[in-house]
Amino acid sequence: MTEKNLQIVLASRPAAWVEAENFRLVESDIPEPKEGELLVRNHYLSLDPYMRGRMNDTKSYAQPVVIGAVMVGGTVGEVVKSCHPKFQAGDKVVGQLGWQLYGISDGSLLQKVDAGKVPLSAYLGVLGMPGVTAWIGLLDICTPKAGETVVVTAASGAVGSVVGQLAKIHGYRAVGIAGGAEKCRYVVEELGFDACIDYKAGKLWADLKAATPDGIDCLFENVGGEIFDTLLGRMNPFSRIAVCGLISQYNSAPYPMKNIGSVLVNRIKMQGFIVSEHLPRWPVALAELAGHVGSGRIKYRESVAQGLAQAPAAFIGMLKGQNFGKQVVKLV
Amino acid sequence: MTEKNLQIVLASRPAAWVEAENFRLVESDIPEPKEGELLVRNHYLSLDPYMRGRMNDTKSYAQPVVIGAVMVGGTVGEVVKSCHPKFQAGDKVVGQLGWQLYGISDGSLLQKVDAGKVPLSAYLGVLGMPGVTAWIGLLDICTPKAGETVVVTAASGAVGSVVGQLAKIHGYRAVGIAGGAEKCRYVVEELGFDACIDYKAGKLWADLKAATPDGIDCLFENVGGEIFDTLLGRMNPFSRIAVCGLISQYNSAPYPMKNIGSVLVNRIKMQGFIVSEHLPRWPVALAELAGHVGSGRIKYRESVAQGLAQAPAAFIGMLKGQNFGKQVVKLV
Repeated sequence: MTEKNLQIVLASRPAAWVEAENFRLVESDIPEPKEGELLVRNHYLSLDPYMRGRMNDTKSYAQPVVIGAVMVGGTVGEVVKSCHPKFQAGDKVVGQLGWQLYGISDGSLLQKVDAGKVPLSAYLGVLGMPGVTAWIGLLDICTPKAGETVVVTAASGAVGSVVGQLAKIHGYRAVGIAGGAEKCRYVVEELGFDACIDYKAGKLWADLKAATPDGIDCLFENVGGEIFDTLLGRMNPFSRIAVCGLISQYNSAPYPMKNIGSVLVNRIKMQGFIVSEHLPRWPVALAELAGHVGSGRIKYRESVAQGLAQAPAAFIGMLKGQNFGKQVVKLV
Repeated sequence: MTEKNLQIVLASRPAAWVEAENFRLVESDIPEPKEGELLVRNHYLSLDPYMRGRMNDTKSYAQPVVIGAVMVGGTVGEVVKSCHPKFQAGDKVVGQLGWQLYGISDGSLLQKVDAGKVPLSAYLGVLGMPGVTAWIGLLDICTPKAGETVVVTAASGAVGSVVGQLAKIHGYRAVGIAGGAEKCRYVVEELGFDACIDYKAGKLWADLKAATPDGIDCLFENVGGEIFDTLLGRMNPFSRIAVCGLISQYNSAPYPMKNIGSVLVNRIKMQGFIVSEHLPRWPVALAELAGHVGSGRIKYRESVAQGLAQAPAAFIGMLKGQNFGKQVVKLV
């Protein structure tokens, strides 16, 4: 155990793109758990696009992070001291302890996990929030039928990679959109998608038509902006769109969408969703995902930043698509 | 019975706004019904925004009208000659016989109606396709809960006027958007909406905030464009949008929408729908609507053009919002 805790707090709110100076690394004493609490040493911090929204002081589905407060974030680690009847030192736990080495919990949002089956970091990705997001968005919101075409944006990312692999397992055609030839190769050759479109290649519409000869029945949308607008023009009658993220818009003025008329013409169902509001589905989703990960049918990939001090740079890189797979920060 | 049939055919496809020369009035012989068919003398022709889409040669939910063919449209009239076992001369019938004085039907899309209870033209409006559209969009798609706020665009129109009145009957707050002070007065004072916003007054956002102090739970969208984009910014968490029409976009380039992010932030369910694809709900809807019209709880208003030759001008005026209530053409 180090002598001090390290934390990254929100120093200022970004005007557009997040900058390193929006964060501040601070040192503090390691907190002492009170009765009913426990102290966790975090091993991995998860970096996720939703955190960008928490940096704004605007109305959204969650409270903004207060200036000077520790950044919110999912973590997985080990209990080092427990005054809680249900946890003991040595337990591996996943929770929401934020961008810091040590955190106190009352146990209410903490889950014990099995470190023997998969690496701890997997509980922040394929067997955590991103994996469940993929499962709920695809199977509960998009509700494809056998043989239908599923398109997912940010296809090599933590969520998108699971969407496409689940789609294949369930018998759908899986088409990814990703930035760059390397990510697209990974999506098709490693993850088994039927096709992947490199949106940086500059011929999105032509590539999209070639990759979706029967149109799009289900769109799992993570990106927004011009890509989303283009995809809207390829939707089939009675198709469904799960709006999970709009990462292209988090740092800039919204892209002016021209193809909303497709919602009417094609009688599309479009639904925004937040995975934390579908808690009753988590156990079902995690059980299926664990089975597929255990059997090797679902693969995953991580970008691992080393040390808490690297979290801001890794986060900024992720918002620009520089990560490749689930972005985590190793804290031990 | 006149000696000749009169028809309006599609002469050319509009480039943007519909022009009178896109139509042509032609005279032809009155057709003779064959065995299993019947001849109807139309009394009223319905003019509806969806017809604009049929004039285009683009992929949509319905086939375009062929150049030279009679324009499609709902009609109500009287059987003048029947070779069909289920109909006889004198029967009043509602159907889809198009922009013409006489039409032949095989009976399959024809419904007998009771001319004794309401004027025949009502079967083209409040007790026809527009009324059922309002009912399905509000109650099946938007699914409001008691006390919630329903906003409807084109509120004084054939569909919008029924949406707001149904909303009040079912215990929701009803807010209309309409063009001009006179339409807004009608919507509030005659139809009983809680509020109406005149979008032509030039302060839509301020007026919207005042009229929806608790935000919008259900949006019944008929108009699209800048108004729709503004309304998106006022939607509540878990709100619903029924996309019924986008009349502002039917004649011009699509308005660039900036507020699609609200779908994610507010976990909105948005759904486009076409009333003819919800046939099993029509009897339920019509039964309820007939009850409310009979008891006077639902009122309606018509713009009546006189004679088939006036149909093109009336249609063009409706696309510009010049009608006031359901637009029909009187053919007798």
